[in-house]
Amino acid sequence: MKFCPECAHPVLFIMPPDDNRPRHVCSQCGTTHYQNPKMVLGSIPVWENESDDEVRVLLCKRAIQPRHGYWTLPAGFMENDETTAEAAMRETVEEAGAEVKLHALFTLLNVVHAHQVHMFYRATLLNLNYKAGTESLEVKLFTEKEIPWDEIAFPTVAHTLKCFFADWHAIKNGDQDGTYGFHTHDVPRSTHYTS
Amino acid sequence: MKFCPECAHPVLFIMPPDDNRPRHVCSQCGTTHYQNPKMVLGSIPVWENESDDEVRVLLCKRAIQPRHGYWTLPAGFMENDETTAEAAMRETVEEAGAEVKLHALFTLLNVVHAHQVHMFYRATLLNLNYKAGTESLEVKLFTEKEIPWDEIAFPTVAHTLKCFFADWHAIKNGDQDGTYGFHTHDVPRSTHYTS
Repeated sequence: MKFCPECAHPVLFIMPPDDNRPRHVCSQCGTTHYQNPKMVLGSIPVWENESDDEVRVLLCKRAIQPRHGYWTLPAGFMENDETTAEAAMRETVEEAGAEVKLHALFTLLNVVHAHQVHMFYRATLLNLNYKAGTESLEVKLFTEKEIPWDEIAFPTVAHTLKCFFADWHAIKNGDQDGTYGFHTHDVPRSTHYTS
Repeated sequence: MKFCPECAHPVLFIMPPDDNRPRHVCSQCGTTHYQNPKMVLGSIPVWENESDDEVRVLLCKRAIQPRHGYWTLPAGFMENDETTAEAAMRETVEEAGAEVKLHALFTLLNVVHAHQVHMFYRATLLNLNYKAGTESLEVKLFTEKEIPWDEIAFPTVAHTLKCFFADWHAIKNGDQDGTYGFHTHDVPRSTHYTS
């Protein structure tokens, strides 16, 4: 930020009185312009086929940078005027053209170096009429064994998928009282992506 | 936003190509300036006295607007370069001067009309050396019966306190397997505060 969005005068990056970190402060009108982390919301769209005792998860191959060509769960920046669940649902429709029923929030992951917090809701696919949106090259269902672990776009997606399959197996084995957990995780600050 | 923070030219509020909602777009350099919800992080600092079988929660009387003079849990805007837990811990120190051990994330609450998501971690007070910070008039421990419900600053704080005491009783009564839950809630869009 170089100029004040309110009056167009240059901003200074200084410590305001009564504050404890430098901020962008307008040299003319004195407004402090705060910068805060953003939320990325998504879902884990699941198709469970009792006949073959398998669970499949819907992934999107990214048509945009960063991580063009890598696989992700449908997710994107939360907008003003929507809830976290509405954001997750909107992104699932936009990126995967998928109709889902949303369940509970499943993971919350801090990505400190990117100034982001990622959250994923569990979801059940209502039908198989999914279809790549403009930000996806391809949308496809994967069993656990088929997941292309080396081609997953972001560590938060890999972590969420691992938690999902771990809970799914625990529930199947009767170890976990039939319920999914809620999982939090901090991506190590040194983790950076190559695009 | 009236002017571009990057080049100081006027911004237009228009629908960019390939987008689905109006954005602030610079009339000169073409940069799109997104606006997204912010996270407010806080804690529920608890002092449990086994001798009187009571649990007490630390509240702060606000020294700032909005809701000056009303009671809140220590909380504030999450900053860049910190995790959600680090933000909750920092706010607990800044507003209540309290040393705590942080536990699991306890509530996540959407406040759509304010473009905010509030989150509270459970926390155990390590000692009774708490002390009002510059944004608090007073900091005080309350039993459930002593909570000034009509003077709570925000619906997200009231909801979090109610969930906390409900879980505490359920655990005490042996109804809940000894563990606290994770609770999500959307504050109705029509809820506005008077300050």
